[in-house]
Amino acid sequence: MINKQLIDPQSIVVVGGSNNIHKPGGKVLKNLIDSKFKGDLYVTNPKEVSVQGIKCCQSPGDLPEVDLAIIAIAAEFVPATVELLAQLKNTRAFIILSAGFSELEGSVEGKILEDEIVESVNRVNGALIGPNCIGILTPNHHSVFTLPIPKLDVKGCTLISGSGATACFILESGIQKGLTFSSVFSVGNSAQMGVEEIVKYMDETYDPEISSDIKLLYIENIDKPEMLLKHASSLIRKGCKIAAVKAGSSEAGSRAASSHTGALASSDVAVDALFKKAGIVRCYGRDDLISVASVFMHKELKGKNVAIISHAGGPAVMLTDTLSNNGINIPHIDSPASKKLLEQLFPGSSVANPIDFLATGTAEQLGIIIDFVDEKFDEIDAMVVIFGTPGLFKIFDVYQVLDEKMKTAKKPIYPVLPSTLTARDEVEEFLSKGRIFFPDEVTLGNALARVCNSTKPAPKDIKLPDIDRKLIREIIDGADEGYVSPTEVQGLLDAAGIPRAGEAVVKTKDEAVEAAQKLGLPVVMKVVGPVHKSDVGGVVLNIKDVKGVEREFDRMIKIKDTTAILLQPMLSGIELFVGAKHEPKFGHLILCGLGGIFIEVFKDVAAGLAPLDKSEVKSMIRSLKSYKIIQGVRGQEGVDEEKFTDIILRLSALVSVAPEIIELDLNPLLGRADKVVAVDARINVSRKI
Amino acid sequence: MINKQLIDPQSIVVVGGSNNIHKPGGKVLKNLIDSKFKGDLYVTNPKEVSVQGIKCCQSPGDLPEVDLAIIAIAAEFVPATVELLAQLKNTRAFIILSAGFSELEGSVEGKILEDEIVESVNRVNGALIGPNCIGILTPNHHSVFTLPIPKLDVKGCTLISGSGATACFILESGIQKGLTFSSVFSVGNSAQMGVEEIVKYMDETYDPEISSDIKLLYIENIDKPEMLLKHASSLIRKGCKIAAVKAGSSEAGSRAASSHTGALASSDVAVDALFKKAGIVRCYGRDDLISVASVFMHKELKGKNVAIISHAGGPAVMLTDTLSNNGINIPHIDSPASKKLLEQLFPGSSVANPIDFLATGTAEQLGIIIDFVDEKFDEIDAMVVIFGTPGLFKIFDVYQVLDEKMKTAKKPIYPVLPSTLTARDEVEEFLSKGRIFFPDEVTLGNALARVCNSTKPAPKDIKLPDIDRKLIREIIDGADEGYVSPTEVQGLLDAAGIPRAGEAVVKTKDEAVEAAQKLGLPVVMKVVGPVHKSDVGGVVLNIKDVKGVEREFDRMIKIKDTTAILLQPMLSGIELFVGAKHEPKFGHLILCGLGGIFIEVFKDVAAGLAPLDKSEVKSMIRSLKSYKIIQGVRGQEGVDEEKFTDIILRLSALVSVAPEIIELDLNPLLGRADKVVAVDARINVSRKI
Repeated sequence: MINKQLIDPQSIVVVGGSNNIHKPGGKVLKNLIDSKFKGDLYVTNPKEVSVQGIKCCQSPGDLPEVDLAIIAIAAEFVPATVELLAQLKNTRAFIILSAGFSELEGSVEGKILEDEIVESVNRVNGALIGPNCIGILTPNHHSVFTLPIPKLDVKGCTLISGSGATACFILESGIQKGLTFSSVFSVGNSAQMGVEEIVKYMDETYDPEISSDIKLLYIENIDKPEMLLKHASSLIRKGCKIAAVKAGSSEAGSRAASSHTGALASSDVAVDALFKKAGIVRCYGRDDLISVASVFMHKELKGKNVAIISHAGGPAVMLTDTLSNNGINIPHIDSPASKKLLEQLFPGSSVANPIDFLATGTAEQLGIIIDFVDEKFDEIDAMVVIFGTPGLFKIFDVYQVLDEKMKTAKKPIYPVLPSTLTARDEVEEFLSKGRIFFPDEVTLGNALARVCNSTKPAPKDIKLPDIDRKLIREIIDGADEGYVSPTEVQGLLDAAGIPRAGEAVVKTKDEAVEAAQKLGLPVVMKVVGPVHKSDVGGVVLNIKDVKGVEREFDRMIKIKDTTAILLQPMLSGIELFVGAKHEPKFGHLILCGLGGIFIEVFKDVAAGLAPLDKSEVKSMIRSLKSYKIIQGVRGQEGVDEEKFTDIILRLSALVSVAPEIIELDLNPLLGRADKVVAVDARINVSRKI
Repeated sequence: MINKQLIDPQSIVVVGGSNNIHKPGGKVLKNLIDSKFKGDLYVTNPKEVSVQGIKCCQSPGDLPEVDLAIIAIAAEFVPATVELLAQLKNTRAFIILSAGFSELEGSVEGKILEDEIVESVNRVNGALIGPNCIGILTPNHHSVFTLPIPKLDVKGCTLISGSGATACFILESGIQKGLTFSSVFSVGNSAQMGVEEIVKYMDETYDPEISSDIKLLYIENIDKPEMLLKHASSLIRKGCKIAAVKAGSSEAGSRAASSHTGALASSDVAVDALFKKAGIVRCYGRDDLISVASVFMHKELKGKNVAIISHAGGPAVMLTDTLSNNGINIPHIDSPASKKLLEQLFPGSSVANPIDFLATGTAEQLGIIIDFVDEKFDEIDAMVVIFGTPGLFKIFDVYQVLDEKMKTAKKPIYPVLPSTLTARDEVEEFLSKGRIFFPDEVTLGNALARVCNSTKPAPKDIKLPDIDRKLIREIIDGADEGYVSPTEVQGLLDAAGIPRAGEAVVKTKDEAVEAAQKLGLPVVMKVVGPVHKSDVGGVVLNIKDVKGVEREFDRMIKIKDTTAILLQPMLSGIELFVGAKHEPKFGHLILCGLGGIFIEVFKDVAAGLAPLDKSEVKSMIRSLKSYKIIQGVRGQEGVDEEKFTDIILRLSALVSVAPEIIELDLNPLLGRADKVVAVDARINVSRKI
């Protein structure tokens, strides 16, 4: 696990340090020297006596004690070196740049070597980054063999990446937009520590005074979703902001699941659910991540009302489109204050929002506009200033005003500077003041929308509804593997407090008639036994009289695999469904939506990660495209939302108590304005998860 | 209209030419001089005798004859100057940079001045660009007062922009990615010529040998949709590619229409329909437009199967996600040829697609991979090569191989070069060879998907189905303004060959009984007269016997405004709707979809611009999210797609013959596997359009 020796070592050795700076062992040493590492720096290389001006040991055995080892030698020699350093040199942190380990597809040896290393490091309670990584970059030491090296600033972004090259490419893009970084971690094969462990460390050591508030993650594989969820949401609750790319969404989509709700719950749905629960802003590429990070680096955005200030109409219109199509408001401004502002601008200007102060607009006018918006336009939460140049004159004065106002304004100001060629000098001066800029207004608009529309983390302590835990455990512990019996389903629903249609399971015609009369006609009859009941003619609706009950009993009891007949009252309402599905490593995904074509054709399903808080369930229901139907549309009766919410909460509690439930479908539930009732349910139990 | 004097003038005068290059009149002259304009260059300025080394006339009256005048003087003096030049100096082309005309909100004088100018120019059949524009840029002359000036190349992109500043900002972004331009037109206030007229000119003068094949449009207002549609689709049929940003989509969305299908047909729907019909790729921002243009500038993409070649896993995964989430395939590659390729790469490489040749991959290997994909992997249509550097060594050799292979390969190769900082020199050398690059793989992926998923232009000559034009005209000419009578509706549907439920309109109880027996019980009864029939209890379904018919007749005939009762057979099927709505300037939008909640809750509507070709209707129907329901889902009967298509085609023909129909709803149509029948229809006629 991460320790002081890794983050702030007093001494570093580059094992395999080289004079050839075109090799990782040479370049990492050069980067360390260039970064003016303050501690002791050692090099080992069997063939050299001095490397890049540093005295070189021919063997690690000749070294003094050393905190951190950066290893850039052939894979086969790494385990012995690590063991030696750990045992004899008190080395407690290792960054292994070398490749040739578990990343080699089908290579058993690579994995064995890697396991040996982990064991050596774990034995001394040490920290291991890699192997097969580019290293780490902190204000204390630049232990990467790559370029570019960004400007390091304790309040810059922390970048944690599952891919070294991707980290480099993210830096390339970010640096040019003025983004600063506090540290960069490339976890490589994550033999001991992956992105999750670094996030955990960030959470456990978070200090609002000196820690970075912004974390950027590039993840290809979430191995420890619970750890990521716990610490990411904890960091966000402490005031941090986290944006992440989880690559591989399309591969996940191809892993088709078999059951009909399960088919929609690919692990990418789980990733989405996890990010939403944690409050992580999900991004889909490098530029996207950088843009969201750039939004994060500005003042706190406190609402969804944006003023667009521009000297050019076109970009302001395109940004208006992007924002308002994504639910961000560009409120019409018309007030005594706005009339006063208009008087101070050239004739033909508009302050209605977008605020257009014309191609001839000046730096002074920009300052006046920003002051008005900041101080007098209470309805506005943030500003975007779009200012480029057609090249008639330099615009240093404009960007200077912009920089000054960004310092003093209470509201965030996002600068779009489109003339990156013609006003290159001016943009560079702006960046040299520590500023970040956006070259494209639509890219900014999309990032701003992502941030505005992201969710807050779920509460830390989720209160589960009262359910009969003891009874649930009894039923589950007594149940066989696989789909449990109708009686057990009833018992579990009752114990969880999930309302269900009254029903009876009968084995004789007389029992059937008696049950039908007790439940109240008309009734529904279903076979017990066959899995796909409809397909075998095992479901009959709306049986209105005793004769019908008798006739159907005689027919249905003969259907293959049928052991009994289930009777329920014939109910009406909107078809809903709620499901739970066990997702390996993630726990239970809870799914909800309208039934039938809404799920099958429109894929209109909301997903959350159990256990769910009431606020999460409400936002799941409201995120459905068919939410209007739940509310009641075209004069049709809607669904009691509180009762629907309650059922989802109880289901989430049920699977928490009975994690052996790998699949649970309430399908359909029938929802009306006065009640929501489960009509059919399937529960699949496995103890092998 | 555009003429030779505008595009290729023998002489140019800058009216208001200045020594101050920070003024438009100074800067445009400097740009002209810098561009080494080959013809005669004159300047007028009352206060100067020489401007930027050119002899200056104090008054336009002192000039010799001159082809093109670029005018940069105060608005009030422009009309007289234009009239003088047109009448006395044989000037036939005008570019008016000056502002102060119709763009000033609420300024009557500005509009009057502008109208005077247009009259003067039109009287001599001249060409006018502007006023209030940045000018035009052609290989012959650089008549803009702005920067940047891109590299001009006859086979580069033509940029036509409704906003001067936006044109500049598009150039800023494009130039840095290596995009070249053949010409740039800023139309300003479009007093005589807007984007549409320039496109028309491009179409009418298109010469495959010397014309640019790529047109980029930035449009804020489509004033002449028919002209744009005609010439844009004509250009595309000739082999051109057009991408366009139409800004202002969100404003349009706020213009709420009143009728229930109409509410979904905002003019932005019309823009979408026009672009689709023309084959224009719609973009939503500058970067988006530049990315699509960059895709266009590569070899023709002939399919949807892409190979991703990379030395870094992360970007390849993100690109795979983006492409496959947008319907582009990254086919798994596994063939004898791919095995041979694998042998030539370093151990650990993968050729399964993405083709990953590792961080250590060489230029030579890249060349081998490209050759294999180009020549031996028949299933692949295009390649994306992602290659950056972690900075260990220079990668000139890689980009040189890439450039060479891009020349010789039959398949398009899109280069993603992410190391724009660390490999800046290498990227610049690559660009110096005339290459274009993509800095971000996801941005490329989205652009590639836009291009792949765009539609072909509709056929030039659309064959309308056979309908009874004479009868339609008779009915329409005889109809009152407003909603036409049920009899007229029936007549129009019959004349258009649109099947409708048999029906009868009756005024007495006896007639009602007779009609019900003739149509066949059960029947539906509806009041004639009230507009919102359901709201007044004026619709009764499923009346099963004569008694019921009698009872309902007695009740319904008393409902307010009721003049008669309509009887129809009770039909079943999937509720569909087809509508037509007259959209000012655009003509008729045809809308189709499933009825009820599918349109109201899911907004699942497809739109096309009349007259529609069969291929367009098919693609409209297939673009519906609910298309699976039309096909038949969950064992339920679907809808005869041919018959549904035919109805939409006939409706499109009907409004072409009767353009006075401002609104027409077939809602519902009932669709089954054997027939589709209109059950209710409303037709609204206006002669004021």
